[in-house]
Amino acid sequence: MAVQWSGLSPELLLALDRRQGPLRTQLEARLREAIRSGRLRTGERLPSSRELARILGTSRGLVQDCYAQLQAEGYLSSQVGSATRVAGGQRSQGGQGGQGGWHPPRRGVPGGSAPERPALRADFRSGVPDLASFPRDDWLWALREASRAAPNSAFDYGDARGSAALREVLAAYLRRVRAAAADPEQMVVCTGFAQGLGLTLRVLARAGIARIAVEDPGYDDAAVATGWAGADAVPVPVDGHGIDVDSLRASGARAVILTPAHQWPTGVVLSPERRHALVAWAADRDGVIIEDDYDAEFRYDREPVGSLQGLAPDRVVSLGTVSKSLAPSIRIGWMLCPPALATEIATEKLLSDRGSPELDQLALAALLESGRYDRQLRRMRGTYSRRRAALADALAEHAPAVTVTGLAAGFHAVAHLPAGVAEQAVVDGARARSVGLYGMSQHRYSRAAEPAQLVLGFGNLGERAIGAGIAAVSDLLTG
Amino acid sequence: MAVQWSGLSPELLLALDRRQGPLRTQLEARLREAIRSGRLRTGERLPSSRELARILGTSRGLVQDCYAQLQAEGYLSSQVGSATRVAGGQRSQGGQGGQGGWHPPRRGVPGGSAPERPALRADFRSGVPDLASFPRDDWLWALREASRAAPNSAFDYGDARGSAALREVLAAYLRRVRAAAADPEQMVVCTGFAQGLGLTLRVLARAGIARIAVEDPGYDDAAVATGWAGADAVPVPVDGHGIDVDSLRASGARAVILTPAHQWPTGVVLSPERRHALVAWAADRDGVIIEDDYDAEFRYDREPVGSLQGLAPDRVVSLGTVSKSLAPSIRIGWMLCPPALATEIATEKLLSDRGSPELDQLALAALLESGRYDRQLRRMRGTYSRRRAALADALAEHAPAVTVTGLAAGFHAVAHLPAGVAEQAVVDGARARSVGLYGMSQHRYSRAAEPAQLVLGFGNLGERAIGAGIAAVSDLLTG
Repeated sequence: MAVQWSGLSPELLLALDRRQGPLRTQLEARLREAIRSGRLRTGERLPSSRELARILGTSRGLVQDCYAQLQAEGYLSSQVGSATRVAGGQRSQGGQGGQGGWHPPRRGVPGGSAPERPALRADFRSGVPDLASFPRDDWLWALREASRAAPNSAFDYGDARGSAALREVLAAYLRRVRAAAADPEQMVVCTGFAQGLGLTLRVLARAGIARIAVEDPGYDDAAVATGWAGADAVPVPVDGHGIDVDSLRASGARAVILTPAHQWPTGVVLSPERRHALVAWAADRDGVIIEDDYDAEFRYDREPVGSLQGLAPDRVVSLGTVSKSLAPSIRIGWMLCPPALATEIATEKLLSDRGSPELDQLALAALLESGRYDRQLRRMRGTYSRRRAALADALAEHAPAVTVTGLAAGFHAVAHLPAGVAEQAVVDGARARSVGLYGMSQHRYSRAAEPAQLVLGFGNLGERAIGAGIAAVSDLLTG
Repeated sequence: MAVQWSGLSPELLLALDRRQGPLRTQLEARLREAIRSGRLRTGERLPSSRELARILGTSRGLVQDCYAQLQAEGYLSSQVGSATRVAGGQRSQGGQGGQGGWHPPRRGVPGGSAPERPALRADFRSGVPDLASFPRDDWLWALREASRAAPNSAFDYGDARGSAALREVLAAYLRRVRAAAADPEQMVVCTGFAQGLGLTLRVLARAGIARIAVEDPGYDDAAVATGWAGADAVPVPVDGHGIDVDSLRASGARAVILTPAHQWPTGVVLSPERRHALVAWAADRDGVIIEDDYDAEFRYDREPVGSLQGLAPDRVVSLGTVSKSLAPSIRIGWMLCPPALATEIATEKLLSDRGSPELDQLALAALLESGRYDRQLRRMRGTYSRRRAALADALAEHAPAVTVTGLAAGFHAVAHLPAGVAEQAVVDGARARSVGLYGMSQHRYSRAAEPAQLVLGFGNLGERAIGAGIAAVSDLLTG
């Protein structure tokens, strides 16, 4: 489909050489070339003859004559009162510049999201919040506020650590809501967990810290990111109290990536004893703890768990984002950095991308300070709480042999399959019935399929679909 | 200054333990702690007693009693009909979590922009467009359009290469305006030149291409970025026709970073002969050309210069951004990638930050397709053209011995100082008169101060300031 250029007159780059013969012949040739090579495609608008004449410094009549000629040749079309456009039926002939010319083999360039799949009637994919609930009006309100209040200097290259206004508001917010030891001077605004982790790992690698512990089971991409940063990932087991600190101690790692508030994917909360053991490990080992505080906004009981960073701000890099609280595609995250690493991390951010978009940052600051962010969280807590109940109810009704854990926070749970039920068989069987289920094995370092468990995301799935989805696979879950 | 939380009721994380004695005593102690440690600061609002009681699962009366007690102790204050706030005069006492506790030595964390300096009456800093002309209304219009039209899936993690809609529109735009061989499938949307360059250099380093030629004089940060990516920068001289391709050939480099349309900072246009020699070099050497197409939108003569990428799409990574055409802090750029590198570059983007913010990308697509982007460029061409004339006039009037080059495009020029005038003396003398001038020496690999030249930016400087600034230093320029 052709891009529909609206507005006064689209620009067009054409080079004429006054020393090389008649301009009209040249202009016709250049336009023909542009169409043949695919630079201009069927249906695309051309500049008005007046505008093109102005750009080229020729008479308008000359351009009109060219257009008429090319219309006669079938390259262009125009209707009375309408713009001149590239006519249909013109094919690009494989010139260097054209669509025909150099289509490469499609090698499956990685998207950020999973590959395309057929529509599912219920997809229990994890890690995605309710996308329909993104507060578009509030976000636009915040962007308007930000744009209205921003000085001109807000449009210049800014502080690579991020907007001072956002860091101020975020720090206050994280002190209040996450009991974090947040100082705006030690914060770096990033574009999300992936970037924050990458910046940290590269700084650590440069400091010679190249053996990084990751939770097992855990966030698969943490190991990928570790390798990408030039370090080695060492899996450390997670049990019912969180990461096994004795194993961590034995691993030889000097840094660890973990999810203390709600372990991904088991949903376990790191116990107070383990928290203290972890901090002691970091002190003994001169180690660094990378805390992924990914869904702490959504807790359903009354046992709040503060950020680990608040316990040991000199040892913890704490990463948070709006990917779960607002939406992933907003691409705003933050890092609370130990003072000893803050400058290096800020420099890494500067060299990586010179800082995040300013207006988006100012909008988030406005959203936080106005209370709209808290309001959105409250609303979503209600939504997820209902979905969580729907999942628990559906499993109790349709698959009573399945036990569920990890439901204290967030919007995913772990379903423990009864003995004799194979994880992959359930996943495959469900897919055949258009229900997306996901096994725990893919989050285990060894990919072991035992014990058989499912990770059930319910963030972006309505209550009715949750019930229907579980009902549709009840026999599979029961074995 | 305290952050002013508006809205219903700010959230607050407080942990009470029902096994540990009276809740009221605990709540009072937790609140005192939060205030003493600096988690809550003077003037910050507390949740309403109703809301806090709800969160904690206690009676409202208990919270009200606590608030009254802490008010009596001077920790909190409240006025009739107004929220309860942290009272003034409370000092953080150096707890781990507080502002008092762990302020690090300020080590000058790098911002993206230059360090603070006293206000200048005329600052000829380069590289920044007219910030006051950023089309705030158009941008908000485009964001509104984008938000209105976006499906819910636009808020999910997206294609790491960027929004398909933006790539489609950008590709058509770059074919039309830059004669680029742009295929949306081979494009990656990035956050600007720094990121695009970094992604490319890391991919090349992994492919064993670790000797990278940079222009001399040139963009200083290109050499920094090269080192950061783990490669070596090799300076190659630039003369009146652009980069010296013979020297490039002799340098042993297998990749080169350059600014063909308007060399930074000399303003030279790469001659047609050199373009062809460069493409031949790349073919012979199996080399990669990294084209920085940074200010091609602004040309003042009628000799358009197309993108080098259009000549050799298999060899050129072409980088463009809106940093000059709209504003740096929007943080949107694009990369046209050779098919052989496109997948690797997209993967690098995925691992770096999982893709750029979607709504901003959709807004840029709307801006382009609506013609508002072209209109803004036309408007700015007029603005810069007047400033360019003001600079040329001021120099002709106040410093006739100075010659000026590099004015065919963009918004900076090179002033050649007369014999006997020392660059640094001019820069220092001007600074003493509150005029910001910048020497060519800082863009030379050797930092050589000869020949003595100034790089004069006029993008973000009004005509009157240009005239006054040059007049104020005329004697320095004349020697």
